[in-house]
Amino acid sequence: MSFAGKPIKCKAAVAWEAGKPLSKYLLQGGQGVEEIEVAPPKAGEVRLKVVSTGICHTDAYTLSGKDAEGRFPCILGHEGGCIVESVGEGVTSVKAGDHVIPLYTPECGQCKFCRSGKTNLCSAIRETQGRGVMPDGTTRFTCRGKEVYHYMGTSTFSEYTVVCEIACAKVDPAARLDRVCLLGCGIPTGWGAVNYTAKVEAGATVAVFGCGAIGLSVIQGAVAAKAGRIVAIDVNPEKFEMARRFGATDFVNPRDFGDKPIQQVIVDEYDGGVDYSFECSGGNVEVMRAALECCHKGWGTSIIISVAASGQEVRTRPFMLVTGRVWKGSAFGGVKGRTQLPRFVEMYQAGQLNIDDYVTHTFDLADIAKGFEAMHAEYCIRPVISVAAAE
Amino acid sequence: MSFAGKPIKCKAAVAWEAGKPLSKYLLQGGQGVEEIEVAPPKAGEVRLKVVSTGICHTDAYTLSGKDAEGRFPCILGHEGGCIVESVGEGVTSVKAGDHVIPLYTPECGQCKFCRSGKTNLCSAIRETQGRGVMPDGTTRFTCRGKEVYHYMGTSTFSEYTVVCEIACAKVDPAARLDRVCLLGCGIPTGWGAVNYTAKVEAGATVAVFGCGAIGLSVIQGAVAAKAGRIVAIDVNPEKFEMARRFGATDFVNPRDFGDKPIQQVIVDEYDGGVDYSFECSGGNVEVMRAALECCHKGWGTSIIISVAASGQEVRTRPFMLVTGRVWKGSAFGGVKGRTQLPRFVEMYQAGQLNIDDYVTHTFDLADIAKGFEAMHAEYCIRPVISVAAAE
Repeated sequence: MSFAGKPIKCKAAVAWEAGKPLSKYLLQGGQGVEEIEVAPPKAGEVRLKVVSTGICHTDAYTLSGKDAEGRFPCILGHEGGCIVESVGEGVTSVKAGDHVIPLYTPECGQCKFCRSGKTNLCSAIRETQGRGVMPDGTTRFTCRGKEVYHYMGTSTFSEYTVVCEIACAKVDPAARLDRVCLLGCGIPTGWGAVNYTAKVEAGATVAVFGCGAIGLSVIQGAVAAKAGRIVAIDVNPEKFEMARRFGATDFVNPRDFGDKPIQQVIVDEYDGGVDYSFECSGGNVEVMRAALECCHKGWGTSIIISVAASGQEVRTRPFMLVTGRVWKGSAFGGVKGRTQLPRFVEMYQAGQLNIDDYVTHTFDLADIAKGFEAMHAEYCIRPVISVAAAE
Repeated sequence: MSFAGKPIKCKAAVAWEAGKPLSKYLLQGGQGVEEIEVAPPKAGEVRLKVVSTGICHTDAYTLSGKDAEGRFPCILGHEGGCIVESVGEGVTSVKAGDHVIPLYTPECGQCKFCRSGKTNLCSAIRETQGRGVMPDGTTRFTCRGKEVYHYMGTSTFSEYTVVCEIACAKVDPAARLDRVCLLGCGIPTGWGAVNYTAKVEAGATVAVFGCGAIGLSVIQGAVAAKAGRIVAIDVNPEKFEMARRFGATDFVNPRDFGDKPIQQVIVDEYDGGVDYSFECSGGNVEVMRAALECCHKGWGTSIIISVAASGQEVRTRPFMLVTGRVWKGSAFGGVKGRTQLPRFVEMYQAGQLNIDDYVTHTFDLADIAKGFEAMHAEYCIRPVISVAAAE
């Protein structure tokens, strides 16, 4: 049966209010997972069946109300493994049945940013995406008679979602969607920061601040770049086992050094500092500073990956920069989703990219609340949610 | 008559104490310019006759006592045009009569930094240079029976000085030393920041914060790089005439925009911001921030050139970096002195590099106090001091 051109009624986890943890809300019998209506895709849009989705800390961050761009009610989620259900007018690059990963950083190929060849930060739909609506200014979701906003242009906590054609990375249909869904955010973010943003070269010494999903992806990226030493830094030494499995060679717990600043520890232990450092701390600006300052004089480059709470600022002595250190940042690992994400799927299929070990927890959509709980309550890399049957 | 192997008695401007402006000290009849004794060069060292020297704001900064590395009494000066008087044991790359520019950033070719190919920050003699002594831990200057320290490994406010062989850039003897002395610091610092540190490409939009000697050199460097627009920014519009002569195309006085932050002015006026910005403000950390934040999202790169007072910190929202801006610094313009400075002299000789217009004031060594006064008291790019006759 085809729904093409018609609304679809389906289940979704609706976040009605900021500041109310979705998890608690749902566990207490809230109506978060409920029936919504998904309008058909308009011109340039694509309606997707979401088979699987990861939960990322950014979803929790927006839900907390700290994200100034968050608009409620909305459907969160941005790590989706999806199948095209139907396409809107003029859509030619994907068709019903294609497997796609929705992109919160789209790739139009036409805007100033895409044409520059210098960045993946496509600007084509940024303004409307930031406001939680499709490019025509409206939403495709309704629930209990109310408009529900989109989130990051993806909204994968729903059995069906609508995204722009330029936000669809078409991937090999042979790949497991309950795995490659994690290519929607965390894995390319870390791996790409190493290989696209920093361009780490063989033999380099790399420091990774934070060994969560992003940090592990940095480690995988550094292994791919043939880095010489990969230093995993975390205040939770339980994370070192997984870091080792992913390829880290050295392990440093800042708490083992008393009051000595971690940047000084690294400079002393690694012959003047590291060649590259990656901040994957989840937004701690003091860690961002340490990551810069542990870099080697003359060339050390530090990449900020995580997003700090609004109002937070990074700081350092300008002398750190004048003496040759470089401070950069990376969004979605500098990855151009439509052209480069298929290659990540190929790497996974070829056994060159570990995704399986990220999936420490799995839940059905009805239990998404438990996924949020798991992320915070115990050792967890990524919870993956089964949303809809692939058929 | 040859002094080789013997001490030389000559005149020098001795800075006896921090915090006492050399200018006032001398104008009030102090003994700043007085007779000193310069010991012969030891192994690996070279004794130079200083024909001309510029005065840079860094000399005044150290004299003020704010420079934590300053050690007194010392002989300041680091923009010298010199002739080799004699060489110490084992010196092979220069000989008596060669024209050289002393380098506060030497180039040994052997250390980790020189071998890296990534930086000009040679470390061979950094530690002793920072302490105001030659590599054997002693000084070559004495005055009134007291040891006098070296400064930046150059000490050009003296008729004779001793420097390391690795700190001598040998240049075309046909070039005027009262001009190419300025290649000892300011001109390569700005020009190199554009062409070596930032690697500005043809057509780029460049913003220059501060139109002093360094800013003008950035402008010249940007012209050489074929930048499309060169935006000169200064709160003193008197400086725009010279900026225009050097090649700036646009002129912005932040005071013309009331309370609107200058970074916002530039972002609004230049289609999202500039491709490259250069901070030549003399160490103002708020200007450093503005220079970063006026850069274009996705690729804009900002270079900090000047040195802030100790304790000062730069700050920004990490979002500025995560969305693709790059923060760097540059010391001596990334120029490797021994191998690259001769090319600057060639450019000057060929009329491709303007040095003449920097020389707004000239004085004899005995009047060096007036040079310091001129730098502060009126419109001045560089005072050049005639130190010793070239013979």
